[in-house]
Amino acid sequence: MKQFPKFYTKMLYDLIIIGGGPAGAAAGIYSARRKLNTLVIAKSFGGQMARKAVDIENYPGFEKISGLELIQKFEKHLRKNKVDIERDTVGKVKKIKDGFFVSTKSRKQFQAKAVIVASGADPRPLEAIGEKKFIGRGVSYCTACDGPIFADKDVAVVGGGNSGFEAAISLHSYAKKVYILEFNPQIIADGENQKLAEKLGVEVITNAALKEIRGGNFVDSVIYEDRKSKKLITLKVQGVFVEIGSQPATSFVKDLVEFSEKDEIKFDPRNNMTKTPGLFAAGDVTDVKWKQIVIAAGEGTKAALSAYEYIINKS
Amino acid sequence: MKQFPKFYTKMLYDLIIIGGGPAGAAAGIYSARRKLNTLVIAKSFGGQMARKAVDIENYPGFEKISGLELIQKFEKHLRKNKVDIERDTVGKVKKIKDGFFVSTKSRKQFQAKAVIVASGADPRPLEAIGEKKFIGRGVSYCTACDGPIFADKDVAVVGGGNSGFEAAISLHSYAKKVYILEFNPQIIADGENQKLAEKLGVEVITNAALKEIRGGNFVDSVIYEDRKSKKLITLKVQGVFVEIGSQPATSFVKDLVEFSEKDEIKFDPRNNMTKTPGLFAAGDVTDVKWKQIVIAAGEGTKAALSAYEYIINKS
Repeated sequence: MKQFPKFYTKMLYDLIIIGGGPAGAAAGIYSARRKLNTLVIAKSFGGQMARKAVDIENYPGFEKISGLELIQKFEKHLRKNKVDIERDTVGKVKKIKDGFFVSTKSRKQFQAKAVIVASGADPRPLEAIGEKKFIGRGVSYCTACDGPIFADKDVAVVGGGNSGFEAAISLHSYAKKVYILEFNPQIIADGENQKLAEKLGVEVITNAALKEIRGGNFVDSVIYEDRKSKKLITLKVQGVFVEIGSQPATSFVKDLVEFSEKDEIKFDPRNNMTKTPGLFAAGDVTDVKWKQIVIAAGEGTKAALSAYEYIINKS
Repeated sequence: MKQFPKFYTKMLYDLIIIGGGPAGAAAGIYSARRKLNTLVIAKSFGGQMARKAVDIENYPGFEKISGLELIQKFEKHLRKNKVDIERDTVGKVKKIKDGFFVSTKSRKQFQAKAVIVASGADPRPLEAIGEKKFIGRGVSYCTACDGPIFADKDVAVVGGGNSGFEAAISLHSYAKKVYILEFNPQIIADGENQKLAEKLGVEVITNAALKEIRGGNFVDSVIYEDRKSKKLITLKVQGVFVEIGSQPATSFVKDLVEFSEKDEIKFDPRNNMTKTPGLFAAGDVTDVKWKQIVIAAGEGTKAALSAYEYIINKS
C-alpha cells in the first residue's frame, strides 16, 4: 500500500472544479448532468456576487435579485445535481501522468482526470499601514456583508469606480456619514451613480492616497495624502470599505498556465483549455474580455462540456 | 427630402439586434443598460427554447423550468429595459458608410451603427416528397407546440438523436402509438432516453430513409426505404415530427461574414466580431463550439459589451 504522509485523503474523480461562483456552479451542473464523477472545491459559494452591494438586474431571467438570493439559487441548483463538495481552499494543482493532484489548505489531496479553474478574483488590498491589522475590526472588503454593522458610524469607501459608488450608496442606508476616497483627480463612475451619491450627501474626495488606517481595538481614523497639496489629512471614520478592484485567484496553478498582464489565466476561448492539456479555466479568473455573471456561467458551461469531451476521448 | 421608394420606414439606432432567443435577449438587456438606443428585430421570442419538448434543467438559477416559462422571463426582462422591438423577419443587412441598413420582410428599413446577429438556427427540413405541402397539416417541427393535437393518433418522429427521443417520450403522453425513424443503423441518443422510450413502448426503426409523406387534406401515412433490404415500407401515421437537427439562420448576411463548414457564422470568440467591423454575432447562429441556453446568453452579453465599446470608440 502506498503512503501519503503529507495528506490525509486521496480520492479519484473525473473532474475537479475549483471555485463556487457562477462559473464553477454552472460547470458543476453540466458536469454532473454528463455523469462525470465531479468534485467542487470552494471555500464558499457565490464568488464576487457575495460582495455585491446592490441588486443584480442583468442576469437574464431575473429582473432584479439580490446577490445572496442568486447565490442560493445557484448553490441549490448545483446540489440538486450529483457532485461532491469540499469546503476548502486549494493549495496546489500538480500535473501527474494521468491527470492532476489537487491539494487543499487543510492538507487533503484529490486526484482527477481534468481540472477546471473557476476560482474567480479576490478583492485587491490597499496595502496601507494598518490594513491587515484591522480586517474585521473596521476594515471590510464586502459592503453587502458588513454594511449593517456601521449603523450611525462614519465610514470611508476607498475607490471611486462604480463599485465604490454603489458601496457608498448602499452604506448610506446605515451610516451617518459616507466618504469616497479616490486616488485619481477624476471620477470614472457612471453619471447616474455620481448624481445619486451627491443627492444622498456622500462626500467625494479626489486625489486622495490612503496611507494609514489607525485605531485602538477598532478603526477610529484614516490618514490620506492630498496628492495636490502633498499634505497628510486625518479623517475620523470607524469603517473603511475597500473597493479598488480585484485580482485573479491563481496562486495554485502558477507553473501550469500563462498569464495576461493583469495576472489573468490565458485560455483558448473556443474550448476553455489552458496551455496544460486537461486543465481548463472559466470566468473572472481568466482573461475573458468582460466580467459578468452570465458570461461566467456560460464560460463555466463551455469548460465543463470541453472537459467532458477531453475525458471521453482519453478513456 | 430623400425618397425611400422600396421601404416604408427609416430609423436610426445605435445597435440593432437580430433575434429574440437567449443571445438576443441578453444582448438587448445589456445594450439598454448601457444606454444604447437599441432595436431588437425578432419574429418571435425564445428561439429554439420554444421547440423544447422537455423541461429545461440546465440554465443556472432555475432547477427545472419549461421552455415557455423561461422564454416569458427573458422577454419580460428584456421589455423591462428600454429597447424598441420589431416583430418581423430580417430580409437583408447591408453595410453602409457609417454602419448598416437592416431591412425586413415586411419592407421596413432601419439604420444602426452596429448590428448583432443572434438569429439562432431553424429546424432542418427532411426534403421528402409531401413535406412542405403538409406543414401544419400533420408535419411539425415543434413537439412542444403541436404534440397535444395528436391525442390518440399514431405519429412518427424522424431522427433518433436525443431531441428525437425527447420528442417521442413527450408525444407518448398524447399519441396512441409513437415511432422513431432513424436513418443510420445505430441510435446515438443517451442510454437513459433509449431505456425510457423502450419502457413506454416507443417503436424504434433504424436504417429508415424517409421518402414521402402522403395524405388527403391531412397526413395519413409515410413511406420509408429500409436501407438494408432496399424495400419501400408504408407506415400509417397522422403526424410526422421532424427532429434531424437545425441550420443557422444567416441568409441575410451572406456577403458580410465567413462561414464554417456547418454554415455557422465565424467570429472572433474574444469580442464576437465577424469579419465585417461593427457586425457582431452570438449564440447558435455562430460556430461557438457548444449550443446551450446559458452559453448563448453569455455570448449575447459579450457581443453587446463589445458593440458598446465599438460604438463609443467610433463616436
